[in-house]
Amino acid sequence: MTDSNQTLERLAAVVEARKGGDPEASYVAKLHHKGLDAILKKVGEEATEAVIAAKGGDREQVIYETADLWFHSLIMLSARGITPGEVLAELERRFGCSGLEEKASRKG
Amino acid sequence: MTDSNQTLERLAAVVEARKGGDPEASYVAKLHHKGLDAILKKVGEEATEAVIAAKGGDREQVIYETADLWFHSLIMLSARGITPGEVLAELERRFGCSGLEEKASRKG
Amino acid sequence: MTDSNQTLERLAAVVEARKGGDPEASYVAKLHHKGLDAILKKVGEEATEAVIAAKGGDREQVIYETADLWFHSLIMLSARGITPGEVLAELERRFGCSGLEEKASRKG
Amino acid sequence: MTDSNQTLERLAAVVEARKGGDPEASYVAKLHHKGLDAILKKVGEEATEAVIAAKGGDREQVIYETADLWFHSLIMLSARGITPGEVLAELERRFGCSGLEEKASRKG
Repeated sequence: MTDSNQTLERLAAVVEARKGGDPEASYVAKLHHKGLDAILKKVGEEATEAVIAAKGGDREQVIYETADLWFHSLIMLSARGITPGEVLAELERRFGCSGLEEKASRKG
Repeated sequence: MTDSNQTLERLAAVVEARKGGDPEASYVAKLHHKGLDAILKKVGEEATEAVIAAKGGDREQVIYETADLWFHSLIMLSARGITPGEVLAELERRFGCSGLEEKASRKG
Repeated sequence: MTDSNQTLERLAAVVEARKGGDPEASYVAKLHHKGLDAILKKVGEEATEAVIAAKGGDREQVIYETADLWFHSLIMLSARGITPGEVLAELERRFGCSGLEEKASRKG
Repeated sequence: MTDSNQTLERLAAVVEARKGGDPEASYVAKLHHKGLDAILKKVGEEATEAVIAAKGGDREQVIYETADLWFHSLIMLSARGITPGEVLAELERRFGCSGLEEKASRKG
């Protein structure tokens, strides 16, 4: 297994650095340049692709499409000035104290 | 900031442990018990909620809904026997060698 | 085949009529009472369900889930003060004059 | 208002006719040629775009994106050998006999 520690944070830093770059040279810059709606559209699109892969695709496709979904989630977070650490902290909070089931009860 | 390092891995371990549990007592067990389609439906639902939050909601809502999206992604991965480490490795691969732009070129 | 001619218009009229009704007594009233985000969340959810059904379900499921998707589209249109006739007119416009391919060219 | 009667049926007939056409010359043929997953991906993508438009866009955008969503729904139905009439009949069934609320009760 890769040393996955801080992968999301490091990836977010790259996204952040490229945010205002040349839209011709960088995918992230291009997406940010197009604006929030274009970014959100990609999140919806990648979620659908992940669902389709999980439904009928092989393992590699599921991994690939989930990576795409998380990557575009990071671009969405960046567009709203949020770090992945804040999302992970929210997950820690749910799962650290009363655990995941706390979430379930709030959902219900 | 929280020590986010193994948050996803630890969360995945909790998901894994509860997978076969009592559907009455655990949200994760209930979702797994309902089957893959129910899990995938939640991924699509949470992606839409994250998009809606990012479009018009406040920071807290975006964090909350993205946490939900990632959490349900982990349940989806678990249903297909995939660890978050494999997804993070795929992200590392893209971003480690030729970087994120490698992805962009393949996409185009 | 059913006389489908004004199905969408008649359905939209029912949605419109129930819009301001008792949230306890009517599903449409309840959804409108919850607000636009709740309606949009349902559209995303039903789209995912239609995709999942089309991917692996039987014919009946696809019909059922697409009906759900179109029904919630109508509620969304109603929330924005739009009639299905306006959407159908847009489809007629694309397909009546230069045809569907006109759309494709604009998309590309 | 346009004469919307049979718009969906006529559009479905066009989709059906172009299904096996030249992928280079027709958008519908191209999508069918790519396969079911590509079609379903578009449904998810267009649903997200409709949601984004309904959340923040003007009326024209909502009409435009809903037209896209319905159009790609028709391609999805076609890929599964289903006519829009069958979906409309399902809507008639729900709304004709015991009405829309019947659906709500089944959902709950």
